[in-house]
Formats: sequence, C-alpha cells, structure tokens
Amino acid sequence: MQQQKPKTAITPTREEDYPEWYQQVIRGAELAEHAPVRGCMVIRPWGYALWENMQRILDKAFKDTGHQNAYFPLFIPLSFLEKEAQHVEGFAKECAVVTHHKLEKNAKGKLVPAGELEEPLIVRPTSETIIGAMYAKWVESWRDLPILINQWANVVRWEMRTRLFLRTTEFLWQEGHTAHATKEEAIEETMRMLGVYTDFAHKSLAIPVISGEKTPSERFPGAIATYTIEGMMQDKKSLQAGTSHFLGQNFAKAAEIKFRDKEGNVEFAWTTSWGMTTRMIGALIMTHSDDDGLVLPPRIAPSHIVLVPVIHKEETKQEVLSYCHALAGALRHIPYHGTTLNVIVDERDIRGGDKTWGWIKKGVPLRIEIGPRDIDKDLLGVARRDKGHKEITSFAKEEFLQKVVTLLDEIQEALYQKALKFRNDHTKKIDTKEEFYAFFKPEIPGGFALSHWSGEEAVEEQIKKDLNVTIRCIPLDGELEEGKCVISGKKSTRRVIFAKSY
Amino acid sequence: MQQQKPKTAITPTREEDYPEWYQQVIRGAELAEHAPVRGCMVIRPWGYALWENMQRILDKAFKDTGHQNAYFPLFIPLSFLEKEAQHVEGFAKECAVVTHHKLEKNAKGKLVPAGELEEPLIVRPTSETIIGAMYAKWVESWRDLPILINQWANVVRWEMRTRLFLRTTEFLWQEGHTAHATKEEAIEETMRMLGVYTDFAHKSLAIPVISGEKTPSERFPGAIATYTIEGMMQDKKSLQAGTSHFLGQNFAKAAEIKFRDKEGNVEFAWTTSWGMTTRMIGALIMTHSDDDGLVLPPRIAPSHIVLVPVIHKEETKQEVLSYCHALAGALRHIPYHGTTLNVIVDERDIRGGDKTWGWIKKGVPLRIEIGPRDIDKDLLGVARRDKGHKEITSFAKEEFLQKVVTLLDEIQEALYQKALKFRNDHTKKIDTKEEFYAFFKPEIPGGFALSHWSGEEAVEEQIKKDLNVTIRCIPLDGELEEGKCVISGKKSTRRVIFAKSY
Repeated sequence: MQQQKPKTAITPTREEDYPEWYQQVIRGAELAEHAPVRGCMVIRPWGYALWENMQRILDKAFKDTGHQNAYFPLFIPLSFLEKEAQHVEGFAKECAVVTHHKLEKNAKGKLVPAGELEEPLIVRPTSETIIGAMYAKWVESWRDLPILINQWANVVRWEMRTRLFLRTTEFLWQEGHTAHATKEEAIEETMRMLGVYTDFAHKSLAIPVISGEKTPSERFPGAIATYTIEGMMQDKKSLQAGTSHFLGQNFAKAAEIKFRDKEGNVEFAWTTSWGMTTRMIGALIMTHSDDDGLVLPPRIAPSHIVLVPVIHKEETKQEVLSYCHALAGALRHIPYHGTTLNVIVDERDIRGGDKTWGWIKKGVPLRIEIGPRDIDKDLLGVARRDKGHKEITSFAKEEFLQKVVTLLDEIQEALYQKALKFRNDHTKKIDTKEEFYAFFKPEIPGGFALSHWSGEEAVEEQIKKDLNVTIRCIPLDGELEEGKCVISGKKSTRRVIFAKSY
Repeated sequence: MQQQKPKTAITPTREEDYPEWYQQVIRGAELAEHAPVRGCMVIRPWGYALWENMQRILDKAFKDTGHQNAYFPLFIPLSFLEKEAQHVEGFAKECAVVTHHKLEKNAKGKLVPAGELEEPLIVRPTSETIIGAMYAKWVESWRDLPILINQWANVVRWEMRTRLFLRTTEFLWQEGHTAHATKEEAIEETMRMLGVYTDFAHKSLAIPVISGEKTPSERFPGAIATYTIEGMMQDKKSLQAGTSHFLGQNFAKAAEIKFRDKEGNVEFAWTTSWGMTTRMIGALIMTHSDDDGLVLPPRIAPSHIVLVPVIHKEETKQEVLSYCHALAGALRHIPYHGTTLNVIVDERDIRGGDKTWGWIKKGVPLRIEIGPRDIDKDLLGVARRDKGHKEITSFAKEEFLQKVVTLLDEIQEALYQKALKFRNDHTKKIDTKEEFYAFFKPEIPGGFALSHWSGEEAVEEQIKKDLNVTIRCIPLDGELEEGKCVISGKKSTRRVIFAKSY
C-alpha cells in the first residue's frame, strides 16, 4: 500500500517547488503581494510589522553606536550621480528617471507628461552622491567630524524580474553615511556596522550569517572595500543580507568633502556607507519557514502568543472570553527584550480550524487554544510553532506566566541552532575542480563550498558562466592557510565561500 | 539718548521680517535646509528628531484606535490617477512623472534617459487610488471590513515656490486609508481621526487649533467632506496642520471596492483618508519660537535638558564632568509621558557662550550650566527656554530631580496658554464689510475674523481676489446663530473663520 503524503498547509512543499513554496508562504502569512505597478510590492500589515520590529531593533543599535537619523531628497540630479564614474555606471541600467513635472491634456484630450525638466532627476537608487554634497557644505574643520548619520528611506532600482522582498523595483532600507577625519576611523566604522548587522542577524533574526569581504568584482560601485553578511537559505543558496562599505576618499573627492585638520592642512574626508533592506524579510522567511508556512523567531515576531478561545456552546462564551482577556492582560505586562509581550486574542467569528491554521501560517511562536475544560483545570495547552502542530504541552497557568519568556528564548535559540546545523551540514571544504563542479551541478544547489581561490577574476568569470556560482565572501574569521586555487591551481593563502545566490 | 535695541540671537526679528526670521530660526537650530535639488529639503538630525517624536506619538495613537501600518508603492500608473476625475484634476499640475527606466549614452557620449515606459508613472502625491486598487482585491464580504491602515511615507507635489517644512516638492507624512461597510462608520472614523490630530496638536505640540469643516471649494479633490485643524501662527496667518476626509463612495466606485453585506447584496464600501505631514514642524516653529530662536514644548523636544559643564581651570575638569554625567544618568531614569528624560551633556571644546546660545537657538526646554561652585553647594541654576535667557532659578539637586517633570509640564502648559492667548487676542467677531476689509488690509495680517457667511462660493472668490483671505474652516464647536453674510448680506446660520493662510 502506498504511504499517504502528509498534508501540509502550504502547497507545494519546499522539496516540490522551492520558489513557488516561498511565494505561497508569503501569501499564506499575508506578508506582501505584487502591486499593480510593475516591479513594486505592497507590504501588508503582518509583513510591515516585521519591518517595524527590524527598524526598532536596528535603530536602537545605530543610536547606541552614536548615529543620528536625518532625511535627504528622493530625487538626485543626473549630474550628481555622474560625479563618481564607477558609481553612475553601476546604477545607470536600473534608474527610474523623472523627466516632467506635470500632466496636461494633448490635442486628443489625453493626459500626457508636460513641463519637461531641464535636467532629469533620478529616483535615488542609493544616496552617496546627494548626501556627499550636503556633507561638503557641513564640514569645514576636523571639529565637524565625524558625521554619523543614518536614513530610513525607500529606494528604486529598476528590475525586470522581481521576487517579493528579494528583488523589487522599490524597496525599503536604511542607509548609513559617515564621514571621518582618518582612514583608520572610517575602516573602524565600516567594521563596527558590519558587526551590528551580524549581531542583529544572529540575536534578533536567529539567522547564522558569515561575515566577510566581497571580491573586487562584487564591490559596491565606487567603494574601496565592501563587506557583507551572507546567510544560507533552505535551498542552500546564499543570500546577501546586509553590506558595509569603506569608500575611501572616492566619494569625498567627487563631492569635495574637505576639512582643515589640526595642523591647518586641507584634506579630503574618508567616508563609509552601510545598508540593510526589506530583503531581510525574505531571508527570515527562507531560513526558518516550513511546509506549514512562516516560522518566526520570537524576538522579531509581531505577536508572540495567540490565544484562541474555543467556544462550542453560546453559554460558555462569556466565561471563555473573560478568561482569555484576563490571561492576555497578564501576559502583556511581561517584559521581553526591551519591549513587552504582544498577545492576540482571536475572537473572529470563523471556524476554529481556520483560525488555528491561519496562525500556523502566520508563524506566531506560541498558540494556545482555550476552552471551558482548560479553564476548569486552569491548564494551558501550549503549541510551539517550531514543533509539530499536534505537539501540545500542558502548563498550569501560573507556571506558564513564570516560564513564558524562557520558553520564547528557547524557541529563539532552537531556531538559530537548527539553521546553523543546516548550514554546517551543507558547507563543505572542497579541494578539487572535479568535486567542485559535481557539488554545483545544475539543478542541485550544493551549499557553501569552502575552497581556495587565487584572487584571479578570470576564475570568478568562469565559474559564474559554467555553474552560476559566485564568491559570496572572503570570511573574516577564515584562517590563513597555504593551498591551491580550486579552479586554476595557482597559489592561494585562504579559503573563500563559493555558492549560488539570490 | 536713543534706547539701544536689545540684541537677539536671531536676526531679523519677527517684527522686522517674519518670513526671513522663520528661515533664520530653522538655520540657527539646524533643523533643515534647502537641498541642491529643486524644491526639496534636507531634514537635519535635530529637525528629524522632532519628526521621530511626532511619529512615535501619532503612531501610538493610531494603533490605540485599531489601525495597522502597511506600505504601498511610490509609483502610481497614470491610468489609476485618472480613475477619479476630480482627483486627477486636483493633482495634474504638480506631478513628478517617471517616463524612463534607465540611462544610456547618446551619440555624443552624454548620459540621457532611455527605456521609455509604456505608461508614465506618477510619483505619489497621495495614495487613494493605488491603495483603493488593493482594497478592491482584499475586500469580498462584510467580514473583511473595516480595513484600518496607515502608511508612513514620502510624497511629491511639484512646487514652484518652496518654503522649508511649509511647502516643499517632497515631504514626509502619514496617510491613513480606511474602508467601511456603512456611511455612518466612515463618518465616525473621519471625526475620530480629526480628534486624534486635535488632541496631538494640543497635548504634544502645545498648539491650540480650531477644528472644523472646509468649504466645498477647499475640499480634497474627490472628497465629500474635508475636515481640518487650523492654528494661528505669530504673523496671525492660519496654518492647516492636518486634514481628515470623508470620501463617501467616490473612491470605492473608482477602484471598485465592493463587498457582500450580511443580506447578500453587493455594495460599494465607504472610505476615509487622513494625513499629517512634516509641515507640522513649520507650525511648531511659528507658534512658539521667539527672537532668540526655536522654543520647543517639552513633550516633542528631542532633548529635555542640556547640561553645560563650565570649566575654567583644567584641574576642575574631571570633577565637573563626573558631576554632570552622574546627574545626567539620574535624570535619564526619570519617566516622562511614555518615555524617559533625554539629557545632553555638552562636552564640546568650544566657547561657553557659543554653547549657551547654540542650545537657546535649538530650543531645549531646560539649560543648566554647572561649574565647581555649583557643585560645592549642590545647587543647580536652571534656565527655562520659555523665559528670558538671564532668568535663572536655583534648585538643590535633589529638589530638581523631584520637580523636573512638574517643571517640564509647567513649560508645556505655559506655551499652550501663551499661544491660546495670542490667538484669542487676534480673533475678532466682525459683522460689517467695512470692518472686515480694514481688518485684512494688505501688509497687516489681521488674524482670525469670526464672521457670518452665506455659503456662496462667489463670496470666497471675491475676498480671495480682494484681500487674499480664505475661509479656513466652519468650526465644529460653532453655535448656530442667525446672521447676515459679512460680505453679501444674505442670510447665514453661523460664523466661519476667515484668515490669510500658509
């Protein structure tokens, strides 16, 4: 007899069709959807609440490291973008261009663009050039440095093929832009913010990431060095989840950010920039979710606990609702990592099964169904989202109130460890070209290959062409080790991470 | 002997040149400046911190009234904007239009717009049409209503003449968009949010505002009714500080937001929208500031207290700094209206006078200069920003820690009462055309005229042409009263607010 396939809340499963599974997890959790505007997305309340939590945690980390927020214009004159040659080349192919400033009826009575601008405006793909122009005005002496500013904003990079959260024409992000008196300070800042991102990924999102430097071919256009954090998704591809750039004096020279140092000499400043985007939500989904939908680490979850009143008879309704609201009230007073527990009481007038599966698909960490018999015993049947949906653990109510934070911390840690084990299981030291090519056979994304690389760009070009594989980063914690490039056989001093990627 | 003019930190004074005074207050406080992009502004950290506080307070008020945040696209296809006829007409003259999606070098090697779009995209001036298109997808049954969503976003309305915060091509705002099953619910929502704005203006910004309905000629394009809060600035002009619109079924019909009601009939939803913008910062500046610069109500101030160490001799430096940091630490633990006190210790290596005047111009509510003699006596000399800068009150340190919140609340109340008195002093019931014309003589903005209006649009046109005066609103708390229109002499049932405006 054929074994029946277990029913899952999301179809297809990860194994059946990973890209479609990703779309369906987003749909099932009501996180976002494609907008009726080419390449753009609508972030729905449950998805936006994830972004709000990311903002809250990162914003505090930025302020704790001495940064302030500010806001710079959406539009960048074309001439500004052109000031840094590599920069404009990097973004020219994906710019939304504003050319007119009004609409007028033409002879046929049809509304058409009118009021042509003398100079086209680019909808910012990133803000180095416009912010640089302001810093040039604000900086005169070494006393005006450092400038440590961050901006929360929308940016636009025109995309032909889009995927929700991962690649959309408009996305939300933060971009930090700092200016310093010395190279050393700027490098220190670049690494500090990479550390903030790493810490955020690990502690708040439970995503184990590898931090490292990008190779020259993968650098931000105009940067001296680009650092990245890379996470492994469940299809074993790598996702770049945040970047921090040391810009040297390139943008300072382009924008003329100059200062008088303590000795009275006029010098160019040293700048950095660093950003993290709504793409992080995609990384979150693809790291933790399962075939029943979204799984959220408690620290980033919009709600930590959902209470589902189970009411079979009208006469018990009031008792059950009162009990749920009293419990929710008690839980909401419990401190939880700088905020308090967020609790939903689901009173909707829909079938119980729809409620249960709805919250499973939305990834709420703890789910408690409460009926009259539970109330009589003062016992709570608690379901953890990271366990099977039939696995219910009973707690006396007072015990639960005592242990709920520990329980959430356990879930957070379990998700991190599970993701870390997955990454370790699919990371392999590979030392021969044959094994390397086998590991990355088409249709079988093999994971992370830790292999030697000679530093030749030709090697990168070849494996990209042959296998669609790139060097994700040169890990910062990699040990120096004599070896030979896995492709060219030339001398190499350390291993790098090769992978397919988003 | 001629009396010497008192020196002020801002030149010119309000009396000498009000518009220029406004610019100089902004410059002196480092709130914002004109960007090198036509019509746009850069919001500097001190100005952005005001916006962050506004966001924090309003966001909580929105969530407390059941709203969730979401995010919709920056770009609106022209065809969407055209769906509501009055709406597109209202915004056609001030639209930034995206027509191309990349840049390419032309024959001369110059970068020019390329990749022309099939349909032009409008950078959102407001989002009724694009959000309406999404609601149409999300709503099927009465169970899907109400939808209560807010968005924090940037919007663009092309302006030829710009003024920082008051009128810029790009500005920041929130826009609430709700859909309801009944007209009554939608009207209730419209009024509820007007109430949230009024409460916010009064309690957080200490700006007394008059809430009322706009006349048909001043309605939001496409609305059935527009409600506003209007504040009187120190030049006696009115500033519209927030609006709430009852949209009836106009936008629901344009976007086809339909639902099946409990009886199974298909009906159009009833919608509202409401917004408040960075313009509020302009209102804040013009309501409270004086000839020494910005004056901030404590509830919205980025910092409540600045401690200025006074160090004349190097050997006392450590003692003074330690004392200041200990005091700051103690103050920062004190709860203050849902947050804690924010305290700056100004250790900058610049002249003491520059520090003092810098903080006066930035409007910090309490300023304390601390030197070795103060420490010996454990006495703090506290200067209130809302009093003269030489007026210092001594507090024993412990007493100050006990009373500081009360003191800040007193400042908050004093600023509100001062602004209210100013408005009352410059609001006049006027019943004759002669007096009305005299009150609004050119070059003398007379304040608010509370006069009868017949309801004729011709009257509005005439006084706009003659005096540049408009009806700011029909006050909600106005009593019904028989009278005659101050201009036309026709029968009227109540008084409205006439004024010059921003």
